[in-house]
Amino acid sequence: MTSTARHPTEITADPKVPLIKITREFDASPAKVFKAHTDPDLIVQWLGPRRYAMRIDRYDCRTGGSYRYLHVGDGSEYGFHGSFHEVRPSEVIVQTFTYEGVPDGVALERAVFDDLGDGRTRLTVTSLVDSFEARDAILASGMESGVIEGYERLDDLLAR
Amino acid sequence: MTSTARHPTEITADPKVPLIKITREFDASPAKVFKAHTDPDLIVQWLGPRRYAMRIDRYDCRTGGSYRYLHVGDGSEYGFHGSFHEVRPSEVIVQTFTYEGVPDGVALERAVFDDLGDGRTRLTVTSLVDSFEARDAILASGMESGVIEGYERLDDLLAR
Repeated sequence: MTSTARHPTEITADPKVPLIKITREFDASPAKVFKAHTDPDLIVQWLGPRRYAMRIDRYDCRTGGSYRYLHVGDGSEYGFHGSFHEVRPSEVIVQTFTYEGVPDGVALERAVFDDLGDGRTRLTVTSLVDSFEARDAILASGMESGVIEGYERLDDLLAR
Repeated sequence: MTSTARHPTEITADPKVPLIKITREFDASPAKVFKAHTDPDLIVQWLGPRRYAMRIDRYDCRTGGSYRYLHVGDGSEYGFHGSFHEVRPSEVIVQTFTYEGVPDGVALERAVFDDLGDGRTRLTVTSLVDSFEARDAILASGMESGVIEGYERLDDLLAR
């Protein structure tokens, strides 16, 4: 991209249920945005804040598969793992997610890739946990800036 | 068991979050109750109401595994599938769950096996969905009688 304008990333806390909703548009087709989420060689290039390198332990993004990866930086490693409940190419990914620093915590996440036409995609990600306290702790953890930065890195990858 | 007395099955709807909580005691050790949940040859003998036969497509109950099974009866088949986020022997199973009649619906379930001593176990199962409407539809579907009947069958299996 030659422009420095970025699509906004909307992050909202649902008022009724302990769920976080993230909405973001991309200037690329659903197939391309989906591939950047499922191909380990691509996802390592954008997921998470710039200051961490992503190291993949396993990333088997298909229905019934599972994953584990690390964010490495600042002399520390942060592990994440989960399983893929459903993966429908260019449409949806439903997965579980645990940050290993809170090993008994688990979120149920759904990523939906909507075709806006003209090579554009709206990505909607929801993350559901079992209490408002856990949800608000995630929001307070600084996840928002990491999500926004990750999607800016994804913009750059998709524009290459 | 020679006694016809059964432990009660408590099924409650959480007032704050769209979650169902089931609590049930069993007169068997956590290891034995856990095995009845993870061994396909055992789970087919008790899961669900008596009027359905359970047919397993796959049941790979380990962290990162997945499952699919059918309840067959009344001339119909009902499919269920999901993935295992975490399986810790005799302690906990965290899994996703979809009833294929509502293919976009998914629940995040946790089964905790607490050792009460003297060969007794308290099983606590929670099931989290993303709306109160979906949760209340599950409760209205007659799942309660199926759960109660399944645990009575499990009592019988554990007593053999």
